[in-house]
Amino acid sequence: MIAVVPGPELLARARLLVAPELNASLVRELERIAGRGAEPLADEVPGGGPLLCVGAALPGSVRATAADRLVWFHSVNAGTDPLLAAGPWPAGALLTRTVGRMGERIAQYVVGWVLAECQAVPEYVGQHARAEWRRLPTELVAGQTALVYGTGRIGGAVAGLLRRCGVRTVGVGRTAGSGPPPVGFDRVVGAGEDAEADELAGARWVVAALPSTGATEGFFGARRFAAVRGATFVNVGRGATVDLAALEGALRDGGVRRAVLDVLAEEPAAPDDPVWRLPRTVITSHSAGITADEDVAVDFAACWEAVREGRRPGLAVDVGRGY
Amino acid sequence: MIAVVPGPELLARARLLVAPELNASLVRELERIAGRGAEPLADEVPGGGPLLCVGAALPGSVRATAADRLVWFHSVNAGTDPLLAAGPWPAGALLTRTVGRMGERIAQYVVGWVLAECQAVPEYVGQHARAEWRRLPTELVAGQTALVYGTGRIGGAVAGLLRRCGVRTVGVGRTAGSGPPPVGFDRVVGAGEDAEADELAGARWVVAALPSTGATEGFFGARRFAAVRGATFVNVGRGATVDLAALEGALRDGGVRRAVLDVLAEEPAAPDDPVWRLPRTVITSHSAGITADEDVAVDFAACWEAVREGRRPGLAVDVGRGY
Repeated sequence: MIAVVPGPELLARARLLVAPELNASLVRELERIAGRGAEPLADEVPGGGPLLCVGAALPGSVRATAADRLVWFHSVNAGTDPLLAAGPWPAGALLTRTVGRMGERIAQYVVGWVLAECQAVPEYVGQHARAEWRRLPTELVAGQTALVYGTGRIGGAVAGLLRRCGVRTVGVGRTAGSGPPPVGFDRVVGAGEDAEADELAGARWVVAALPSTGATEGFFGARRFAAVRGATFVNVGRGATVDLAALEGALRDGGVRRAVLDVLAEEPAAPDDPVWRLPRTVITSHSAGITADEDVAVDFAACWEAVREGRRPGLAVDVGRGY
Repeated sequence: MIAVVPGPELLARARLLVAPELNASLVRELERIAGRGAEPLADEVPGGGPLLCVGAALPGSVRATAADRLVWFHSVNAGTDPLLAAGPWPAGALLTRTVGRMGERIAQYVVGWVLAECQAVPEYVGQHARAEWRRLPTELVAGQTALVYGTGRIGGAVAGLLRRCGVRTVGVGRTAGSGPPPVGFDRVVGAGEDAEADELAGARWVVAALPSTGATEGFFGARRFAAVRGATFVNVGRGATVDLAALEGALRDGGVRRAVLDVLAEEPAAPDDPVWRLPRTVITSHSAGITADEDVAVDFAACWEAVREGRRPGLAVDVGRGY
């Protein structure tokens, strides 16, 4: 479902509504880009006219009473699943998102945790605390294989950085596609194909960078984990894509060597959440792909430029597909 | 002091002596390359004839009694300072060394510890142990500056990998040199020049990859550390190049943010060594640049090929300079 790009007349008349939690300096920047003053995106939107909103969430009352006037919503986050899960997206409203340097940030998160494992960073920190000088096995990541689920901007950035460290990168997409693999990938295979299982068996790293959509819920389940032979699993996508019971089973039987989970289906995890007791796992706090104010402004400006020229922004979300 | 490359007649007659600690499979490989059987490199070398030795150390008695017959020594390590420190190197004897994938390994060690710090890996591991879900500040390494001391094979490999992660890399050599900087570096400055102090002040990372020679002892001392403004210091070269008291002072006054030391002047560090109590420091066990048997064989083969053709091997050590 491709949303309609608002035409020049609508864009000119649209009121700019910004979420109250945005920093004042960012709001000033958005006002400068849109060439109009901002009003708060609150539960009540008095008055009429077309609406251009910037924020993380669309207030339920706006959705209920002013949905037909929403022409464009720019999300300050990359993941728009909370926006889309709240109900049908207002018909015809353009939804764009902030990716910013997120690909770069997530790539550094992944490579940081990958190389930290290769260099036994946590173990050396532990030895240091015990004043213990002992050589630990380390690994050269160059020549190893990483499977990266998601071949879009984020998966591509992750693969690109892994590849620059000498890793062979295999993307997993909805289909293998034709023609040469996208930048950053040595190969792309389709999810569910035999080639995926073969590559899973040979991989040292399995990186999940999938959005949360109906189609990806529990995507990493028992069948997929059963094909893994000693890879470390890193999730920088969405928690809902992983069946945690299946992951636990694979960690216990050794198919999955370690896990690094930046995302969980329910965040934050409470201290008594059993997820903390998964073996050989580290949970981080959804910190891989933070967006900075600068990212929001830069991406909004790019979308603005496209819309003004009547083009569909590259950061537009296909609200049917969910990303 | 450039050693003489043994001529074809000497090479043909040379006996192959290999250190007893080498693995049998490596010895077989060395025999295959040299086209002759190996004898043990022991304290006593009965019989005469020119000697080609492979090992980590030259036994004192061989040095005392058969130095004039030594035509070539191939070191299984990259650092040949223990060999050269044991006394004057036998005149005319070629010394070659194993670098192997050491540049690549050391580069991954450096980038692994750099990104682990950016991603707060030790802190997240600690939080995980306490079942604590809390966002910690992380850093994007792209755009930061790293000073790399040593612009040879190893420094170049370190700089190259940092650069592929988006880091601006400044090499520090004996002189700035002329012409474009070597591969991996955005810029090269000379040690002691004003430009070095300027770059130290702006650097986020200071990586020491210097060999141990008379000229580099205590190279990282109070004056140099005083120019550092918040960089993390990583030593993958030699422990003797660092004045530990000066480093401790810089860590205490905050000029140096953290330290990662893979090498110490005295290894292994005993449990009561005060080095374990340096603030914000992690010591690893000289593990960054291990050489594998495969590396020794590949590098010996390359040297053999050069010597056979009458060329000076690229891995020959200038025994006067010390590397």
